[in-house]
Amino acid sequence: MPRDLRVGVVGYGAMGKAHAYGYTAAPVIRPRSVRPRLAMISGRHEPGVSAAASALGFGAWTTDWRALVTSPDVDVVDICTPPGTHAEIVAAAAAAGKAVICEKPLSVGLADAEAAVAAVASASVLAAVGFNYRYLPAVALMRELIAAGEIGEVLLWRGSWLSDEFLDPAIPFDWRFDAVLGGSTIADLGSHLIDLAEWTVGPVAAVAAQSRTFTPHRPADAGGAALRAVEVDDASSALVRFAGGASGVLEVARTCARRPCDFTVEVNGTAGTIRFDYARLNELQLGRTADEEHLYGLRTIRAEHPSHPYAADWWAIGQGVGYGASFVNFLGSLLDTWPDGPWEPDLATGLRVQRVCDAMERSAAGGGWVDV
Amino acid sequence: MPRDLRVGVVGYGAMGKAHAYGYTAAPVIRPRSVRPRLAMISGRHEPGVSAAASALGFGAWTTDWRALVTSPDVDVVDICTPPGTHAEIVAAAAAAGKAVICEKPLSVGLADAEAAVAAVASASVLAAVGFNYRYLPAVALMRELIAAGEIGEVLLWRGSWLSDEFLDPAIPFDWRFDAVLGGSTIADLGSHLIDLAEWTVGPVAAVAAQSRTFTPHRPADAGGAALRAVEVDDASSALVRFAGGASGVLEVARTCARRPCDFTVEVNGTAGTIRFDYARLNELQLGRTADEEHLYGLRTIRAEHPSHPYAADWWAIGQGVGYGASFVNFLGSLLDTWPDGPWEPDLATGLRVQRVCDAMERSAAGGGWVDV
Amino acid sequence: MPRDLRVGVVGYGAMGKAHAYGYTAAPVIRPRSVRPRLAMISGRHEPGVSAAASALGFGAWTTDWRALVTSPDVDVVDICTPPGTHAEIVAAAAAAGKAVICEKPLSVGLADAEAAVAAVASASVLAAVGFNYRYLPAVALMRELIAAGEIGEVLLWRGSWLSDEFLDPAIPFDWRFDAVLGGSTIADLGSHLIDLAEWTVGPVAAVAAQSRTFTPHRPADAGGAALRAVEVDDASSALVRFAGGASGVLEVARTCARRPCDFTVEVNGTAGTIRFDYARLNELQLGRTADEEHLYGLRTIRAEHPSHPYAADWWAIGQGVGYGASFVNFLGSLLDTWPDGPWEPDLATGLRVQRVCDAMERSAAGGGWVDV
Amino acid sequence: MPRDLRVGVVGYGAMGKAHAYGYTAAPVIRPRSVRPRLAMISGRHEPGVSAAASALGFGAWTTDWRALVTSPDVDVVDICTPPGTHAEIVAAAAAAGKAVICEKPLSVGLADAEAAVAAVASASVLAAVGFNYRYLPAVALMRELIAAGEIGEVLLWRGSWLSDEFLDPAIPFDWRFDAVLGGSTIADLGSHLIDLAEWTVGPVAAVAAQSRTFTPHRPADAGGAALRAVEVDDASSALVRFAGGASGVLEVARTCARRPCDFTVEVNGTAGTIRFDYARLNELQLGRTADEEHLYGLRTIRAEHPSHPYAADWWAIGQGVGYGASFVNFLGSLLDTWPDGPWEPDLATGLRVQRVCDAMERSAAGGGWVDV
Repeated sequence: MPRDLRVGVVGYGAMGKAHAYGYTAAPVIRPRSVRPRLAMISGRHEPGVSAAASALGFGAWTTDWRALVTSPDVDVVDICTPPGTHAEIVAAAAAAGKAVICEKPLSVGLADAEAAVAAVASASVLAAVGFNYRYLPAVALMRELIAAGEIGEVLLWRGSWLSDEFLDPAIPFDWRFDAVLGGSTIADLGSHLIDLAEWTVGPVAAVAAQSRTFTPHRPADAGGAALRAVEVDDASSALVRFAGGASGVLEVARTCARRPCDFTVEVNGTAGTIRFDYARLNELQLGRTADEEHLYGLRTIRAEHPSHPYAADWWAIGQGVGYGASFVNFLGSLLDTWPDGPWEPDLATGLRVQRVCDAMERSAAGGGWVDV
Repeated sequence: MPRDLRVGVVGYGAMGKAHAYGYTAAPVIRPRSVRPRLAMISGRHEPGVSAAASALGFGAWTTDWRALVTSPDVDVVDICTPPGTHAEIVAAAAAAGKAVICEKPLSVGLADAEAAVAAVASASVLAAVGFNYRYLPAVALMRELIAAGEIGEVLLWRGSWLSDEFLDPAIPFDWRFDAVLGGSTIADLGSHLIDLAEWTVGPVAAVAAQSRTFTPHRPADAGGAALRAVEVDDASSALVRFAGGASGVLEVARTCARRPCDFTVEVNGTAGTIRFDYARLNELQLGRTADEEHLYGLRTIRAEHPSHPYAADWWAIGQGVGYGASFVNFLGSLLDTWPDGPWEPDLATGLRVQRVCDAMERSAAGGGWVDV
Repeated sequence: MPRDLRVGVVGYGAMGKAHAYGYTAAPVIRPRSVRPRLAMISGRHEPGVSAAASALGFGAWTTDWRALVTSPDVDVVDICTPPGTHAEIVAAAAAAGKAVICEKPLSVGLADAEAAVAAVASASVLAAVGFNYRYLPAVALMRELIAAGEIGEVLLWRGSWLSDEFLDPAIPFDWRFDAVLGGSTIADLGSHLIDLAEWTVGPVAAVAAQSRTFTPHRPADAGGAALRAVEVDDASSALVRFAGGASGVLEVARTCARRPCDFTVEVNGTAGTIRFDYARLNELQLGRTADEEHLYGLRTIRAEHPSHPYAADWWAIGQGVGYGASFVNFLGSLLDTWPDGPWEPDLATGLRVQRVCDAMERSAAGGGWVDV
Repeated sequence: MPRDLRVGVVGYGAMGKAHAYGYTAAPVIRPRSVRPRLAMISGRHEPGVSAAASALGFGAWTTDWRALVTSPDVDVVDICTPPGTHAEIVAAAAAAGKAVICEKPLSVGLADAEAAVAAVASASVLAAVGFNYRYLPAVALMRELIAAGEIGEVLLWRGSWLSDEFLDPAIPFDWRFDAVLGGSTIADLGSHLIDLAEWTVGPVAAVAAQSRTFTPHRPADAGGAALRAVEVDDASSALVRFAGGASGVLEVARTCARRPCDFTVEVNGTAGTIRFDYARLNELQLGRTADEEHLYGLRTIRAEHPSHPYAADWWAIGQGVGYGASFVNFLGSLLDTWPDGPWEPDLATGLRVQRVCDAMERSAAGGGWVDV
C-alpha cells in the first residue's frame, strides 16, 4: 500500500487546476509508489481559494502562502503563481525543508533564478521545474529518438510558439503584461521551447533576438478609459547558436489570429529529420536517410500507441492523450521517484533556460549577438 | 458542498480503469453538484480486483458482483464487463433499485437488450449506456452544428472504424472472439458508429451487410498448439438507409495494419459537409455552401478551443483533450443531472442501436436488405 | 529523331483539352520515341470546334467525327465524347484501322462495351481506355508496393469518390443527367475506383449496391420553368467481394458539399496498410507490420520525389505534379509503346470494369447481391 | 489567330526544361493573345544542347549564347543559366533590343543586379524575373486576400525553405557550391521567400542573419580524392524588420533530411492568419477573427477550385495543379501582356530582393543588424 505524499499547492489559477488534475489522475493512470494527497492550497482571495479547495479536492486552504509553506501537513510545495513570485516562495519552501515543484519560468530575472537554485541547494531538498511538455508521449519519444542517434548529429533546430492571447487590444492590463510579475513572452512561452531545445540538442551558446509590443497600451481595467503601458513583448524571435555546433531559430508570438497555443519543434540531423506539432500532440514525424529511398518522406508515428512508455500507462489500445497527460506524467514521475529522486527537470535546468531568456531579452534590447 | 454519489464498478479491465479515471477527474475538471465516491469494485479474480481497488482508489472490493449490486453502500452500478454479461447485471442492479451505467454494447443479442430495458423501466431507475464518444468536444460540436441546420438536410452519412486488434493470427482466443460473451465486431465497434449516426441523422431503417472472419481459428491458449474456432467477425460493412431519407455506408474492421483505433464520420447535407476523424480528435472539419465561394474548402475547427462548451471545462486557453475526456465529460454529465436525470444516452438508445446491429448481423448471415 | 504519330481527338470538352495537354506536354517532360502531332479535332458545333482547334493547336477540325475517324491524316483516334457515344466511335475507328484511345467509362451499358471490345479485337488495332489516375506517381507506386507484397495478402479494400457537382438542384439538365448519353455516376466515377480496385486487388466477384437520386427533376434548360426527370444516380455505394477473397466497400457521390473531386483508396493487407487521398495527390501513406514497433503509424511517402519513376520524368528535385500529369504519363506511355504495344489499360480492362458497374446498377435496382 | 512570339532560351538544365514546358503548355491551358514559338536554345555542350533542342521542341540550337541573344529569329531571351551568368546575358539581350526573362536570383552580387536593371532600363525593353511561385493559385490567392485586408494589418511574417539537396557530404563540388557562379543559398532559395514577403507585406528594412556551411569541403570531382572548399552557405536564417512595421523570421536550409523542397509562409495580421505550405501546394489556410467564434480555427481553402482565377484556367472541376503550373501561369501572363506589359515581377523587383539578400549576407558575415 503506497504511502501518502502531502502536496501543498500555491495558487489556484489555471496551473493550480492543472496540477491538481495531475495529482488526482496520476495514481489511476498507473499505480505509484506514493499516493499524492491534496493537503492544502493557498491563494490571496478567500472566496476564490476556498471554492477551489472544494472543487479540486484539497483538504485545507489558506490565504497565506507562508502558512502553507511551513505547514507540518505539507511534504511538497507546488508553486503555481505568477512568475515574479516564484523565487521567493521556492526559497521559503526550501528553507522549511519542503520539496519544491515550481512552475516555469523559474523566475523573472536571472538573480531571482540564481537565488532559487541556491536556496534549494543549500536546503538539499528535491526540486523540479514545470517543463511539463517533456512528458507528452510524442515529445518524450522525440528526445529518445534523437538521443539514440536516429537522426545523426544535429545540424539545425527550429521552434515556434504561436498563440492569439494578446491579439485583441481591448484585453485589459493584468499581471501577464507586467514585467515584474509576469515577465516576458520570451520567458513565458520561450522557456518551454528553450528547454526542449537544450534537452534534445544541448546548451545554447549565443542568441540574437528581436522583440515587439504591438499593443503598447491597454485599458488599465476592464471597461475603464484609463490606459496602462504594457511592459512585455507580444512577440519575439531569435537566431540561436548551440554550443555543440548546431544552429537554430526560435519564435514566440501571442498575436497570431486563430492560433490557440500552437507550437512546433523540428530538428534536422545528418541522418534524419524529426518534427513535433503540438496541434496534433499524439503524432511525431520522423524521416531517416537510412530508410528506403523509394519510401522517401516523413512517417507519422502515433505516439499514443501503447508501444510508447508514457502512452502505455494510459489506454490499452493506443488512444490519444491530451494536454493534461503532460501533468499526469510529469507529476507522476516525481511521485515515482520520491523521496530519492532525481527529479527532472530540476532547478538547475530552469536556471540554464533562464540564462538563455535573459540573453534573448538583452539582445532584443540592445541589438546583435549575446553570449549566454 | 456537494453530496456523495457512491459508485460501484463491475469489472476492472480497460473500461473499469477508464471509468474510474472519469469519476476521479470529473470534479477537478469542473465542479459537480454531487461528488462521486469510488465505493466498491468487483471482479472474478481476487488478486486482480484487490490490486485494482488499491490502484484506482476504490474503498472496497468483492469477487461477487451480486454483492456489489445489492450493497447498501452503492448508489450507482457501473457495468464494465464483457458484453455478454451486461443484461443480467443491469437487471439485477435495477431490481436492487440502483441507477445503472452500462458499457456498450448494451448486450449480445436483442432479447437480452430488451430485457435490460424492461428491467430498468420496471424499476424506474436512471440508466445510461456508455456511448462515450458523444462527449468529445468535437463530436458534441458536430451534432450541435448538424442540429442547428448548418449543413442543411442530411443526404449522406459515412462512418468507418479501423483497428488492428485482430490482425495477428497468433493472438490467442479470448472472450472477444466468443460470440456469446464478447459479441460481434459489428456490436462492439459498430455500436459506437450507429449511435453517432442515429444521434446526428436519425433512425436507421434498413441495412445490407457483409461480414468476414479472416482468421477462423486461433490458438486456444497462449503458447498452446490447440486451436479454437473464432465465433465473431473480423470485419463487417453495411449499406444503410435512414428513416429520414438519407443513405449511408458503415464499416468496422479489426484487421487494418497500423491503424490503432481510427474512426471517421462524415455527413453531407444540402448545405454543407461535416467530418470528424478520431485520429485528430480535437479537430472538426466543416464546409458550408453559404461560405464565400473563393474560400471553397473545409475549415478545421479547433474543438479544443474554450469557445466550445465541453472544451471550456478543461483548459483555459484551448489545449487538446484526449480519449479520457470522453469519460470525464460523459460520467460528469451523469453526476450533473443526478438524481433527476435525464441521463443520456439512455438504455432505449442502446436498444435501438442493438436493433441495427442485429439487422446487420442477420443481413450478413443471409444476404440482402434487412429492415431494422 | 522521333517519327510523328498523328492524333485525332473526338470531342473538345474538358477531356479533349486534357488530352491535348497530355500530348503537348508529354515530349517535353521526357523524350518519346514518337512525337504526337495534333492532326485533327472534331465536334458538333462549328464555332466551338474551330476555336478549340486553334486554342489547343490542332492542324485541322471537322464537325463530322466519321470524317476524322476515316481520315488518312489520323493514326490514332482519341475519343473524348460523352460515354453513350463511345462504343460506336470505337467500332468505326477500329474498322478504319485506327488505334483507339477511349475515355472512360468504355460505354453506357454492357452490350455496347462488348461490341467495342469485339470491334477492336476483330480489327487487331491497339486500344486503351482512359483510366488516367493509374498514371499518377503516387497511384502507380501504390500498385507497385502492393504487387511487391509490401502489405502482404489483401484483406480489405475501400474506395470513395466525393464531389459536389450535382448538389445544387438549380443546375439544369444536361447530358450528364441522361442515362443513355451520360450513364450513371456508378459508371462515371465508380469506373475509376473499380479499375484501381481490380488493378491492385484483382477481379470483383460480386456486389450489393444502393443508389440515390436526391434531385429527381431539374430545370430542362437554364432559366426555364420546365422540369425534366433526372435519369441517373446522384450517389451510390456498394459492398464488394473480390474473387481472391478480400472484401470491400465502394462509394461514389456527387452531392458532397465543398468536396471538389476527392477520392481516397485504402487497402489493408496481412502485412500492412496503404492509402491514397487524391486531395493530396503527391502523397502516399504506408504502414507495415514489419516496421519498428516503436515507430508505429503510417509514413507519408512523397511520391513526387524523383526516386519514383513517373515523378522522375518531371522535375529534378521532386516537386509536386498535378492532375494533368496523369494524362501526360498515360498518353506518354502509349507513345512510348507505339506501335507494338501493349497499351495499358486496354479495352478488355474497360469491359471488366463495365461488368462491375452493370452488376452494381442491377443490384441497386433490384436489391441484394449480384454476381459480376 | 494569335501572332507568334519567338523565344530563345539560354540554358538547357532543369530551368530550361521547366520554361520550355511552360511555353508549350500555356496556350493549351488557356488561349493566349500571342503564341510562343520555341525558336532557339543555347548551351555550352553541343551534344547536350542538340539533344535538348530535339526533346523540348526547339527549332534551332547553338553553343554560343551571344548568337542566340542577337539572333533576328528571337523576340524574347529567357535566361535559365546559373546565377553568376545572369547579369551579363541580360545586358547583352537588352542591348540587342530583346525582351528579357531572367531566372532568379537576378545575379550574384548587388553590382551585377544593378547593372542588369540599368541595361534593361536603358534599352527600354520588357523584362521579368522568374519568381514563379507567385503564380501558383494558392500563392496568388494568399496575396489577393492579404491585399484585400482579410487579415488586417500585418504584424508578423515567417517563411522557411527546407530541402536536403546538400545534406550528403559525398555530393561533389559543382557550380552550386561556387560563390561566383551559383551564389549563396540565401540568394537561391531565400530570394523566393523574400520576394513573397515583399510582395505581400512590403519592403524589408533591416535584417540580422546567420549562415552555416556544415560541409566545408567536398570532392572536387565525382569519385576523386581531391577536395575543394565549398564557398556558399548550407543554411541561413534571419530576423527581419519590415519598413511597414511588421517583424519576421526567415530560414533557408539545404541540409534537412527527407525534406525535398518544402517551403512555408505564414502571415499574422490584426484580423487573421494566412498560411501556405508548398508541400500541399493546392491548399491555403486562412483564419479570421471575424469568423464565428465557435468555428475557431483555420480553414483549408482548396485553391485548385475553379473559383480561383489561376486555377480556373486549368481543369473544369477543380483538380490539383503542380509545380509546372507556376511556369505556365507565369510565362503565360507574360504572353498575355505582350508587347505592352507590364511584366511582373520586373527586374526592379529582382534588384530589391537582391538588396535584401546582400544585407543578409553581410549580416551573416559580420554579425548584428544590417539595414537594406
